Amino acid sequence: MIEKHKLKAISGYPEWLPELRMVELSWIDQIRKIFESYGYAPIETRSVEPVEVLLKQGDTDKEIYAIRRLMAEGDEAAQPPEHALHYDMTVPMARYVAANLNELVFPFKRYQMQKAWRGERPQEGRFREFIQCDVDVIDTRDIPLHYDAEMPVIVFETLDKLGVGGSVTRINNRKILQGYYEGLGVADYGNAMRIVDKLDKIGVKGVSAMLAAEMSLDDSTIGKILALAEIKGTDVGVVGKVEALGVKSPVLEQGLSELGFVMGELARFPEGAFVADLSIARGLAYYTGTVYETKLTAFPDYPTVCGGGRYDNLVGSLINRRLPGIGISIGLTRIFWKLQKEGVIKPTRKTPTDVLVVFPRGGHYAQVAATARVLRGRGLKVELWHEERKLDAQLKYAGDKGIPFVWFPPVEAGAPHQVKNMENGVQYDADAASWTPENG
Amino acid sequence: MIEKHKLKAISGYPEWLPELRMVELSWIDQIRKIFESYGYAPIETRSVEPVEVLLKQGDTDKEIYAIRRLMAEGDEAAQPPEHALHYDMTVPMARYVAANLNELVFPFKRYQMQKAWRGERPQEGRFREFIQCDVDVIDTRDIPLHYDAEMPVIVFETLDKLGVGGSVTRINNRKILQGYYEGLGVADYGNAMRIVDKLDKIGVKGVSAMLAAEMSLDDSTIGKILALAEIKGTDVGVVGKVEALGVKSPVLEQGLSELGFVMGELARFPEGAFVADLSIARGLAYYTGTVYETKLTAFPDYPTVCGGGRYDNLVGSLINRRLPGIGISIGLTRIFWKLQKEGVIKPTRKTPTDVLVVFPRGGHYAQVAATARVLRGRGLKVELWHEERKLDAQLKYAGDKGIPFVWFPPVEAGAPHQVKNMENGVQYDADAASWTPENG
Repeated sequence: MIEKHKLKAISGYPEWLPELRMVELSWIDQIRKIFESYGYAPIETRSVEPVEVLLKQGDTDKEIYAIRRLMAEGDEAAQPPEHALHYDMTVPMARYVAANLNELVFPFKRYQMQKAWRGERPQEGRFREFIQCDVDVIDTRDIPLHYDAEMPVIVFETLDKLGVGGSVTRINNRKILQGYYEGLGVADYGNAMRIVDKLDKIGVKGVSAMLAAEMSLDDSTIGKILALAEIKGTDVGVVGKVEALGVKSPVLEQGLSELGFVMGELARFPEGAFVADLSIARGLAYYTGTVYETKLTAFPDYPTVCGGGRYDNLVGSLINRRLPGIGISIGLTRIFWKLQKEGVIKPTRKTPTDVLVVFPRGGHYAQVAATARVLRGRGLKVELWHEERKLDAQLKYAGDKGIPFVWFPPVEAGAPHQVKNMENGVQYDADAASWTPENG
Repeated sequence: MIEKHKLKAISGYPEWLPELRMVELSWIDQIRKIFESYGYAPIETRSVEPVEVLLKQGDTDKEIYAIRRLMAEGDEAAQPPEHALHYDMTVPMARYVAANLNELVFPFKRYQMQKAWRGERPQEGRFREFIQCDVDVIDTRDIPLHYDAEMPVIVFETLDKLGVGGSVTRINNRKILQGYYEGLGVADYGNAMRIVDKLDKIGVKGVSAMLAAEMSLDDSTIGKILALAEIKGTDVGVVGKVEALGVKSPVLEQGLSELGFVMGELARFPEGAFVADLSIARGLAYYTGTVYETKLTAFPDYPTVCGGGRYDNLVGSLINRRLPGIGISIGLTRIFWKLQKEGVIKPTRKTPTDVLVVFPRGGHYAQVAATARVLRGRGLKVELWHEERKLDAQLKYAGDKGIPFVWFPPVEAGAPHQVKNMENGVQYDADAASWTPENG
């Protein structure tokens, strides 16, 4: 025996019963299908990276899980750990592209659906092990702006198909923030972005205070910064609202033109699915243009479930080449965990089995097994009972697992086979060589 | 930039180009389909377990990767690591069953296809990160012997469908070894099994010497032990061969009866697919009955690619209950790595895309995009070119990625759309609303 608490759940590491895992797997299938329908190819990167590669992006050092052989000795134990588990798919993908540059065809369009690990303090929506589903484009030349619109469309379509009950993707462009801040004479625009990104957490007063204290900005400048952050809109009209603030710079103009293009491309979607929101910046330093954040409409206080953007320098910086990129990440575990917790996901079946072939008292095993093989050979998912046993026990098993059909091979020679629809209780004669499930 | 060697492959952590990952993914789909066709339900366990749970099975301590936050401080850094990456699926499944006993329906039939990690020295067929595909049954009562036959059948069917070019599964029963050794008066049968299991590595001479030196067995006993290990056969006839050695014990009789039953059930399969081999024991201590080891016919010197057996005490031992189990594991990475290395796997396409819709000079983006949407809406996997560009470059892209069809929206109003079959070069008029790919 092992101490009972060692068998328990580990905080931050979600695990599902089979009935929920079946739903999660169907989600993964659905996401893959959509990613592939847009022509993205699958890759899977190893789970570990050199610590230096992960740290290069900064800001994440406290969250990384290093790995080391439990019985490491001597030099191996004395050195700092060489490898750590990845904390997202973007950095490993960047490394993969840099390492396989000559083997890949560009534009390289890949999707990746894997686990990642972060040593965060677990709280609602934050996990230590979680699945992310990423889609990205990397090219050796400029990536057309159309991809900036394709990414949120893929997310919209995915969340719609998964039935999450609505989503809203907020869109901004880092060039607008950079250009606007530069136009205001704020040289350290990166720092300003970082502070404004805290609006959700610390509010207008907190951000004002930080801008004054940390950047010594005057009230007028702070007012202008906050005025930009207040602009929101569901269409191209936001461009005019920003222009009306009277700040000018070439980078700002470029950013506004890009945002306008993207909002225009998204105009055919339902109102409110996409919102231009000049307050969002995304935490990660590597974004250079369009950025996205998606929330579930039904749970506005729950953390962002998808995020991404354009990063024109991340991949190339690893090998000193120009390799622009853009992508978006779906936080599968974060969404799935919330929807199962809220009862939106209602699993019914505990097994994929379509048919249970029973072994009634007085039955013949060879016939039970042969029947199962015939049904299985026709593409059905089939279990059989391997021992004579009370029919009640076998039917209870089918009922408990949610198996929709139970098959009765005849006990008397020459009698017909029968099948029972467990949902409506109807039982009827059937031939394993030709029967197909109703509603199947 | 980052030091170039940091971008390189890490020994023991295989990673594939998209064209190979597509094949690997199709393998995973195929295995899942077969597992589900036998009524096994999916679960996914977290990647980490408490170190104590992993160490309980012994013999594996040197191979375990512990994890720890890179920036752990104070108490967290001073304590031995609490969690480690799992090294197989069996121990995590046992813990999962023990933890969820009241939520599961028994017999619990599950499959699991996940990565595992071992800190082994990399060599041909040994990896530090690898995918295993496991199928197991756990019950609260005796598990019928038919499952002992079902497990190798599932493996046979899987390897057959994957096209590995033939496999041979060697089957034995631990009860035969235990009963035979006991019948010979060898009380420490576990130790004798462990030594005989080295036959493949150190040969008859080595095993004889170890049995004499470590267990002080006489020549006659050693001779009898080796005589058993020499017995092989493709049918029930092996039972008679063992009986002819003249050793007797109740456990031996039980084991022979079980092996005879399993070989009888497998008689309908091609000769040589299943071999009773009285020399195999499997390294792991928890097996209690039938054991399996599968090799690829074409690569007899390559390590075992599948293995498993019956373990009637492993799961129950965690919570002091009776929970017999049986299962088998397919070493996906081990098989896939070898077959791609030997050129048995010949990937052709670098993307799942069915159709590339080109954007010819003078074309209309709205039309290009609308055509792609129509085709995608009909279930096809579709990329589109987002900018006007030389047709040559767009066709080269389709050719380089192995995209089978290229679609040409008309440049002149009213002209028909055309599609080109990239394999045979034939180009013809087509309507996006009704066209279906040839051989699609």
